[in-house]
Amino acid sequence: MYNKFKYIEGGICAAKGFKAAGVYCGIKKPANDDPSVKHKNDICLFVSDTECNTAAVYTQNKVKGAPLIVTKANLEKSGGKSVAVIVNSKNANTCNADGVEKAQTMCDLVSKELGIESEKVIVASTGVIGQILPIEPIEKAVPLLAASLSYDSHLEAATAIMTTDTVKKEYAVEFEAGGKLCRLGGMAKGSGMIHPNMATTLNFITTDCAVSAEMLQEALSEIVKVTYNCLSIDGDTSTNDMVSLMANGLAGNAEINANGEDFDTFKAALFEVMANLTRMLAKDGEGASKLLECVCSGAKDKDTAITVAKSVVCSTLFKAAMFGEDANWGRVLCAIGYADAEFDINLVDVELKSGNGSVEVCKNGAGIEFSEEKAAEVLKSDEIQIMINLNAGSESATAWGCDLTYDYVKINGDYRT
Amino acid sequence: MYNKFKYIEGGICAAKGFKAAGVYCGIKKPANDDPSVKHKNDICLFVSDTECNTAAVYTQNKVKGAPLIVTKANLEKSGGKSVAVIVNSKNANTCNADGVEKAQTMCDLVSKELGIESEKVIVASTGVIGQILPIEPIEKAVPLLAASLSYDSHLEAATAIMTTDTVKKEYAVEFEAGGKLCRLGGMAKGSGMIHPNMATTLNFITTDCAVSAEMLQEALSEIVKVTYNCLSIDGDTSTNDMVSLMANGLAGNAEINANGEDFDTFKAALFEVMANLTRMLAKDGEGASKLLECVCSGAKDKDTAITVAKSVVCSTLFKAAMFGEDANWGRVLCAIGYADAEFDINLVDVELKSGNGSVEVCKNGAGIEFSEEKAAEVLKSDEIQIMINLNAGSESATAWGCDLTYDYVKINGDYRT
Repeated sequence: MYNKFKYIEGGICAAKGFKAAGVYCGIKKPANDDPSVKHKNDICLFVSDTECNTAAVYTQNKVKGAPLIVTKANLEKSGGKSVAVIVNSKNANTCNADGVEKAQTMCDLVSKELGIESEKVIVASTGVIGQILPIEPIEKAVPLLAASLSYDSHLEAATAIMTTDTVKKEYAVEFEAGGKLCRLGGMAKGSGMIHPNMATTLNFITTDCAVSAEMLQEALSEIVKVTYNCLSIDGDTSTNDMVSLMANGLAGNAEINANGEDFDTFKAALFEVMANLTRMLAKDGEGASKLLECVCSGAKDKDTAITVAKSVVCSTLFKAAMFGEDANWGRVLCAIGYADAEFDINLVDVELKSGNGSVEVCKNGAGIEFSEEKAAEVLKSDEIQIMINLNAGSESATAWGCDLTYDYVKINGDYRT
Repeated sequence: MYNKFKYIEGGICAAKGFKAAGVYCGIKKPANDDPSVKHKNDICLFVSDTECNTAAVYTQNKVKGAPLIVTKANLEKSGGKSVAVIVNSKNANTCNADGVEKAQTMCDLVSKELGIESEKVIVASTGVIGQILPIEPIEKAVPLLAASLSYDSHLEAATAIMTTDTVKKEYAVEFEAGGKLCRLGGMAKGSGMIHPNMATTLNFITTDCAVSAEMLQEALSEIVKVTYNCLSIDGDTSTNDMVSLMANGLAGNAEINANGEDFDTFKAALFEVMANLTRMLAKDGEGASKLLECVCSGAKDKDTAITVAKSVVCSTLFKAAMFGEDANWGRVLCAIGYADAEFDINLVDVELKSGNGSVEVCKNGAGIEFSEEKAAEVLKSDEIQIMINLNAGSESATAWGCDLTYDYVKINGDYRT
């Protein structure tokens, strides 16, 4: 699937008709005062030239950030139509008595500034939970953001949504649908408090491909399951996670409103972008020194493959072993063993792979002789693949994670203060 | 419940008629060569003067250590009767092609040496997964162990089952049943690879109270649920975990074979011992600097209380915050929010407590003003209680865990090698 699409620059501005802006408004402390702040920008806005069909998925945490509550209500009111997105970082606006009111104000400010209906504004926040969101800096920032909007300011937006992220995450592709060239791109934010089984992290996807609201939601739900929901940094399901997908139709293709070749192509493009963003999120996990990519194949069904692959990248012990570059395959087998799925553990093979080569460590559920030197060489890489074959079918899935390091503990031992 | 029983010394030898022995046989490297080895002893044996009714619970991991397979089969063959227990540390005898054969050999060696049936021997192993267990040192050790058996060698046994444990874990109480003085005591081992939803860690309980096999199993299953199964160090469910409970009846009470006051007293004694061992296991979690005890009250039912309390002590982010002594209550609320249970998040109160005082941080699901100085003082303690009130009923439960530290990463980055 990775070779069918042409990578293009532009992130959320890659698709036709999307403008963006990102600025510093003062929610983050000035960078000099706070070493955890990697980028100064703390608020961004992006806007489509025309109204978009919109799909979204939200956290499954019972504690829902106020911005999610407002966004969900807005999209219900507008019948799934949106025009603009406003996002701040450093403060999650969650668990605050005035959270919904403030999130609503953010939409109203954008509405007034751009002359669009307030319910066509998506709002998101990311950062510390339970601190009152200062609204004055945002009031001052919105006119500035509107004035700064441009078709190539995707980078300003992508950096404005970063918290403990060390790199900005953007990806976009070109593809053809209905004989027209379409573009789909996105940006993501996330480093800690990331775990499967929800719309992990903040992710914003834009496309100029014309797709009906219904098919858009179907595509997003399907692809989220095998991308963001197969990502874990630390097992913590955040309160503010959201993925939005906006389609403005400016590519001029006939609207995709049913299953078929065009819809398959669209989903494949969405997978391409979301899988790449997921990989970036895993690699930039808080404190991470290694990307862990677990590929489970030979499963009797997709869910089994997903469950097993996730279980391995979620294992704290295995993550620590990878940090130590220790080929402790027993921990892989242990994590496979407590995965909540049905399979015969006595058929399971495990192989460790990287750019430095590969080494088989387990066959039919039992250890085999292998060269420790070879294994050490494989594990020196900063991108490790754990290949699991259940030898029980033909389905496969990938899960993404990272190693557990001293820096993870350091970052999270004093994030708030 | 903690005040109804008299604490007594003696661990697994506290109950009448139980002898123990622990020695070094050479499975562990000599202590000087391996700084991870805290205690030299690596094998122990304990024996009841008379046959015991026996209950046991095992790991729910699909990968089951060979010793568990053999023990389970033995107890089935013997109709739940046992006389002796042999345990080695440093090697889990799991995921080895010859594992079951070796575990069987361990039982046979004890059987021959003591002149008892092999199926009345319980065998357990703990340590690294997937390394061939050397049987020769064990063959040599069994006669030595048998010769060393004594009614007061509980300490030798308790230290022989330690792996990365830094302290031995023993607890015992006295109580009265059917007008007779009874004793119940146990020892436990465990530090990493510990997680709820199974019989976590190796735990051996002995009692001289006469209890029928059926009621023994009922008591064990009930109490495991609210003690060991409410413990998490790192979310990893081990392959070799087991709790056994042996009752030899030498206290001379009329056998407890039905519900009633005596059975309630017995279960309370079992809770007392297992809860204390659980607390010790949490406090000695790999790399831990703080014990975390989460008490969830005001739940509509027990399962809700358990689920919520566990979710908090399992949160990697919250564990790291506790290491940093950061009153990041948003992470507590976040973890409550993703607990798989039904309750109204808007009714939830949270308070942090320790020997240094207490501080309310969250009321009705939202943050409240609190003194950061006071919170810092509370969190300085090495035993922190997180008090959650769901304000929706009268059930409560406790879960135990520990903070996530640099040392956890260090220990698990190079455990195997």
